[in-house]
Amino acid sequence: MLIKAGIVGASGYAGEALIDILLKHAHVRITGLYAKIDKPLAISELFPRLRGKIDLICKEIDIKEIINNCDLVFLALPHTVSMGVVPALLAAKKPVIDLSADYRLKDSRVYRNFYQVDHKDKINLKKSVYGLPELYRENISKANFIANPGCYPTAAILGLAPLVATEAVDLDSIIIDAKSGSTGAGRKLSQDLLFSEIEGDFRAYKVNSHQHMPEINQELGFLAQDEVRVSFVPHLLPLARGILETIYVKKSKKSKIKKGGLTDFYKKFYKLEPFVRVRDAGDYPNLKAVVGTNFCDIGIQEDGDKAVIISVIDNLMKGASGQAVQNMNILCKFEERTGLL
Amino acid sequence: MLIKAGIVGASGYAGEALIDILLKHAHVRITGLYAKIDKPLAISELFPRLRGKIDLICKEIDIKEIINNCDLVFLALPHTVSMGVVPALLAAKKPVIDLSADYRLKDSRVYRNFYQVDHKDKINLKKSVYGLPELYRENISKANFIANPGCYPTAAILGLAPLVATEAVDLDSIIIDAKSGSTGAGRKLSQDLLFSEIEGDFRAYKVNSHQHMPEINQELGFLAQDEVRVSFVPHLLPLARGILETIYVKKSKKSKIKKGGLTDFYKKFYKLEPFVRVRDAGDYPNLKAVVGTNFCDIGIQEDGDKAVIISVIDNLMKGASGQAVQNMNILCKFEERTGLL
Amino acid sequence: MLIKAGIVGASGYAGEALIDILLKHAHVRITGLYAKIDKPLAISELFPRLRGKIDLICKEIDIKEIINNCDLVFLALPHTVSMGVVPALLAAKKPVIDLSADYRLKDSRVYRNFYQVDHKDKINLKKSVYGLPELYRENISKANFIANPGCYPTAAILGLAPLVATEAVDLDSIIIDAKSGSTGAGRKLSQDLLFSEIEGDFRAYKVNSHQHMPEINQELGFLAQDEVRVSFVPHLLPLARGILETIYVKKSKKSKIKKGGLTDFYKKFYKLEPFVRVRDAGDYPNLKAVVGTNFCDIGIQEDGDKAVIISVIDNLMKGASGQAVQNMNILCKFEERTGLL
Amino acid sequence: MLIKAGIVGASGYAGEALIDILLKHAHVRITGLYAKIDKPLAISELFPRLRGKIDLICKEIDIKEIINNCDLVFLALPHTVSMGVVPALLAAKKPVIDLSADYRLKDSRVYRNFYQVDHKDKINLKKSVYGLPELYRENISKANFIANPGCYPTAAILGLAPLVATEAVDLDSIIIDAKSGSTGAGRKLSQDLLFSEIEGDFRAYKVNSHQHMPEINQELGFLAQDEVRVSFVPHLLPLARGILETIYVKKSKKSKIKKGGLTDFYKKFYKLEPFVRVRDAGDYPNLKAVVGTNFCDIGIQEDGDKAVIISVIDNLMKGASGQAVQNMNILCKFEERTGLL
Repeated sequence: MLIKAGIVGASGYAGEALIDILLKHAHVRITGLYAKIDKPLAISELFPRLRGKIDLICKEIDIKEIINNCDLVFLALPHTVSMGVVPALLAAKKPVIDLSADYRLKDSRVYRNFYQVDHKDKINLKKSVYGLPELYRENISKANFIANPGCYPTAAILGLAPLVATEAVDLDSIIIDAKSGSTGAGRKLSQDLLFSEIEGDFRAYKVNSHQHMPEINQELGFLAQDEVRVSFVPHLLPLARGILETIYVKKSKKSKIKKGGLTDFYKKFYKLEPFVRVRDAGDYPNLKAVVGTNFCDIGIQEDGDKAVIISVIDNLMKGASGQAVQNMNILCKFEERTGLL
Repeated sequence: MLIKAGIVGASGYAGEALIDILLKHAHVRITGLYAKIDKPLAISELFPRLRGKIDLICKEIDIKEIINNCDLVFLALPHTVSMGVVPALLAAKKPVIDLSADYRLKDSRVYRNFYQVDHKDKINLKKSVYGLPELYRENISKANFIANPGCYPTAAILGLAPLVATEAVDLDSIIIDAKSGSTGAGRKLSQDLLFSEIEGDFRAYKVNSHQHMPEINQELGFLAQDEVRVSFVPHLLPLARGILETIYVKKSKKSKIKKGGLTDFYKKFYKLEPFVRVRDAGDYPNLKAVVGTNFCDIGIQEDGDKAVIISVIDNLMKGASGQAVQNMNILCKFEERTGLL
Repeated sequence: MLIKAGIVGASGYAGEALIDILLKHAHVRITGLYAKIDKPLAISELFPRLRGKIDLICKEIDIKEIINNCDLVFLALPHTVSMGVVPALLAAKKPVIDLSADYRLKDSRVYRNFYQVDHKDKINLKKSVYGLPELYRENISKANFIANPGCYPTAAILGLAPLVATEAVDLDSIIIDAKSGSTGAGRKLSQDLLFSEIEGDFRAYKVNSHQHMPEINQELGFLAQDEVRVSFVPHLLPLARGILETIYVKKSKKSKIKKGGLTDFYKKFYKLEPFVRVRDAGDYPNLKAVVGTNFCDIGIQEDGDKAVIISVIDNLMKGASGQAVQNMNILCKFEERTGLL
Repeated sequence: MLIKAGIVGASGYAGEALIDILLKHAHVRITGLYAKIDKPLAISELFPRLRGKIDLICKEIDIKEIINNCDLVFLALPHTVSMGVVPALLAAKKPVIDLSADYRLKDSRVYRNFYQVDHKDKINLKKSVYGLPELYRENISKANFIANPGCYPTAAILGLAPLVATEAVDLDSIIIDAKSGSTGAGRKLSQDLLFSEIEGDFRAYKVNSHQHMPEINQELGFLAQDEVRVSFVPHLLPLARGILETIYVKKSKKSKIKKGGLTDFYKKFYKLEPFVRVRDAGDYPNLKAVVGTNFCDIGIQEDGDKAVIISVIDNLMKGASGQAVQNMNILCKFEERTGLL
């Protein structure tokens, strides 16, 4: 069986990564590529790398055509643009996997605070399933509409879920020091993103005010059944791909995990997960261990009542397009790793 | 004696480099900073690096104010913008050192062909002195108006002058394979200049059609007293600063340089030059040997009737702002190396 | 049908790239990994990236074990080491694909001059087939022993073959200005290869004396049925993967290619080749267009009797491990692109 | 007055940076360069960049010659090597500024634990003055022997001193997430430091076990008059120069600083310091703001009872050689900024 998949927002880095993955996917044929462009363009013009691999024209976004051409639609659009497209696609019963931030935050007031715009589609916001398979696999398998997680939240939530879900951590103590490559900022024109600026430089930005912080708080809060307010400081690395988060926590007095047993606890927690690899104690993952893969690698260090968790992903794979395909696999009942190994 | 210097175009990379140099210059005080900006801004807002070093406001370009504030003016403006400013400054008898391309090409038809715009100030075009001290020191010392050379031409002309000036090279054989860091393209917003695009990449561009090619041909032609048409292929390196040119030539039958004697010949040719360092035979300069300095380093390899010349500069120093200050030193009768060592 | 493949020299960059490719190859199972190491080590210890993908121990080199375990052997060893291993493997009738330089140069005196060591296995040197499928596909399909081409020669020969094979180029005029990423130098410890040295730097090295130059001369010479002596200047780029060569030639008077027809001529020449992509006139390939792929992309510019050819490959793919697998596919009668798309 | 200065360990990155600074220093002449090398070598052979700037031979380490040639000695040696040289120099009454770690930790047991070697010179260990001018200017001015601080500790201590010295912070809460460029690891040969490994990568290392951690604890402990045990996780950035530390603290209940007043408090604390720049609230320093300078830039964010402090330095300047020259200036009664602006 072959699914006809469409990618809306094919001209950005997440769109490009989706094409790469789907071209190798045994059960998918890409039948439509769409983007905010002035005129139709061969996708191999936009990405010369793809010559000889795919021969499609990337077109302007045309909902009717998308509905006619595609069985399932990936939206790799900027936030606020997605919510202009989703209602029509869902009305036409098309399964949608949205890589934007538009349907992740369940509280539309928080969305407005962090994205500076009113939410225009609160009805579908209620229906979206947060597409982190490690937490919501069951729901994803029954869903028609997936809000694919943000890149920073994916690494943070996977790094913290075992502790937060079991009351093993002091919820007030969580500090996430996050470092991302430049593709996390997308392909937009901005002086800050010029090569001459970033090369040889490193900086923090949006200190405790990044739009991914409420997403992390929401999901950890659901897990903890309690309010969570993490400290979250993102930094920009002089490299293109990858996120490494160094997470600092204090253990809770309620924790039932035995001293020195954190690594074993994480290994058990993620035992059946195809895309989470917990390192042995004393071994910490570097970025290159996951770049180009859909894995999240986690390493843990314990020191008395404190712990350091290092969580790494490829922001365009497990942090975006790889996870989107993982969600599609679950939703379509394909083997979950198809196209991702 | 202190010169009051103004920098017009202070918000770009060449402007920033000029500030850096002039702050250390014994005979200069920066009295005016100007740029195409929406509203006046402390220069330390534009370049946080400069906090505590300089406390000036960068203003919009205002010719009258410039004339009132400055004894001498550096123009670090994009081409076509310079020629809108030069006439008024020269009319007010201000010495001008123009880092743009507007007054380098003596034939305004060639200018139009390569810069896609008509030259608007042919009168002053005739008066400009091409500011390559190694060739025109005498003229520069008497000049009021300097057309500061382009970055690629500086490395190319210094690498070839000893051969071209002495009929030692077959003029039809010259091939210049040039590689530049990203600051050579300026600080403009362009998708091609994003960090995510350039990191890990390398490309040729404007193959035999770059606007610096006619500048090289003009100056080598003056030296040879003959038409010169080089092959010139520039490439973009994934680093911020520096130009390395690998130059291939065939020796002319008229050459009087003895076999194996090229390196010695170059050493003699540049013996008195403060900013040209000829390497020993078999030793080739790398970029880092000159980055941050005003030097042009040259290494030569001979093989029968062929020779390879490797010429490196810092594109923002000897290729732009350093050379501009060298020209100012000559023009103002300061010791030529002031502020540059 | 599944081939049992062994990789000798699995701890270097070419070995790692071979593992990556063969893990995705439909007809191959990796059954042995060997390297010059002190004690056996899980390959996922050497390359943490590979955890969960391959579970083999990398062992010390043991010819008997290799012969018992493997149907076919890839040698990703340093030069001079390969020729200590090849005779025993060939004696045991194992097909061998040697990625080292040991069996490429047919004249063992040239080998000694450029590799500073006597050739110890001249008998097998005569039997090796130079593994460039675009020139020797027929021979490869019948061979048992492949000398896999060097990285620089692959890009150079593919860039020049159409002209050299048809007497379309002045053989004395060929200049190859080559730029390579750091993995081309292997994983050896050398101060020149430290990050702190290469970052932000660019340099030429082994000007007209690199060991790949005679390999290029040999193969172009076979094509031309004449002596060829190219100028060859390699440079080291501050990036990890990829080679771009800018090739300068003068057209021969014997050339039958019509003016302006070079691009079309190249397109016809490589029409049936699965891994050579000739760009349209005026379009030049960048490194990222091929990094991670087995493609060689070629762009051509003509200017009267001169031409510039830009040829790019991934040095670890088409320049080493990808081409090795392509050779295996031909030798084993698999579809030539298996595992490489 | 001209001081004759010697640099022992001139072949490494800190030695190179010392040469750069001292060449511009109005009151210093470099009279001796020494390193662990096989035979004497022109320093311009070791660093081709320096040609035409300095014409000294770098010699093997010879204590007698050093004593004869130099009024003051900088030791830019690896730890454990310094303590073999210091006693003789101090015995000869030469002022010594030691950039190694050998005389920083006052407790020689801690030294042994973190440097895996017994301290051989406990007598002079007691005499060393920790060369952080912002804390010990008075002592430095009277000292003959300076233990120049480590790079990570310099950024950490300057970032924390205002809070720790005033009981404004919960001493148990301090977390230092540190990121350094590759030159911090020195110029030693190690596979981990190869360009091919570090480019495009990012990793944590020595999690809560780095040898600079006890140095931070010692100095903050002196300030607090109490035991301090920070969490300290260093990371390796894919760039050559610079350290950025993101420091997380909980305010103490004893703190007398008013809410929202942290930035003002820091500005007052460092008001007279020539090399500490505190940013306005909401403004965070990036690495490039300090690379090439002796500044430490600090930005602060407050959120209730928590605070984030971002502290950046150039690891080779304020983190090593710049600070060493600052110490020399104080010790020799030169204006403190001489050679450093």
